Amino acid sequence: MIEGVTATPLKIIATPGGDVYHGIRNDDPGYVGFGEAYFSSVLEGTVKPWKRHRRMTLNLIVIHGLIRFVVHDDRRQSATCGVTTEYRMGPSDFYGRLTVSPGLWMAFQGLASGASFLLNVASIPHDPTEADRHACDAFPFDWSSK
Amino acid sequence: MIEGVTATPLKIIATPGGDVYHGIRNDDPGYVGFGEAYFSSVLEGTVKPWKRHRRMTLNLIVIHGLIRFVVHDDRRQSATCGVTTEYRMGPSDFYGRLTVSPGLWMAFQGLASGASFLLNVASIPHDPTEADRHACDAFPFDWSSK
Repeated sequence: MIEGVTATPLKIIATPGGDVYHGIRNDDPGYVGFGEAYFSSVLEGTVKPWKRHRRMTLNLIVIHGLIRFVVHDDRRQSATCGVTTEYRMGPSDFYGRLTVSPGLWMAFQGLASGASFLLNVASIPHDPTEADRHACDAFPFDWSSK
Repeated sequence: MIEGVTATPLKIIATPGGDVYHGIRNDDPGYVGFGEAYFSSVLEGTVKPWKRHRRMTLNLIVIHGLIRFVVHDDRRQSATCGVTTEYRMGPSDFYGRLTVSPGLWMAFQGLASGASFLLNVASIPHDPTEADRHACDAFPFDWSSK
């Protein structure tokens, strides 16, 4: 596990005619404010390259399909500096919320057929100047692994 | 249209390998605070019965499938008292956000095959004591209409 990353299991409430899926409340650990909620989709096999937010805390919930999030820690002061960890999220695999603190590198890949969908409840609104980017091969990870 | 209900079209940003779908920002009209984000699913044909929130503002986004939201206004002081209006939402039909103020009755129905999914970015956390409920037939609406 990487310092500053938390995977929280979430409840699915069985309801006649269609279930209810918990997301995030304003008193949950990992909630640090509301800036914006948006969805990203990712096709099977596609890797969305490395991105590091300087100020945004991510709260990621995969509502459809299966996505692997790969987090890389290159913060010199961190106890987990140098560590790369994979987190697999999706309603049939692990339904939960992945909280990612600012300062960590994250890339993700669609693993289910068709498009997988994530919701990000971001602590600040989108601001292109607060994110850094690297290509998929900037940090070692075998994206062809199953 | 009903006083206190707004349907706002949202952008879908075409992105290689998977699109990005706007949701709600903390400076959007209709945003009045963050209490909780959760998903509800609704099967084709199923009607989720009438519910009226006394304090919660709903911000509803249908990310998968097609849902009709039917809003009924029985507020005596309202310019649209007595009006019942249907709003159809879904990414292939109308991708947007439906803002529903407290005090209005709302019921919804799945119109797409399988399950349709909505996200509610609610202004307060879930509190069963602030909502009133009625059965599907409490207000006239032809749920078998296409």
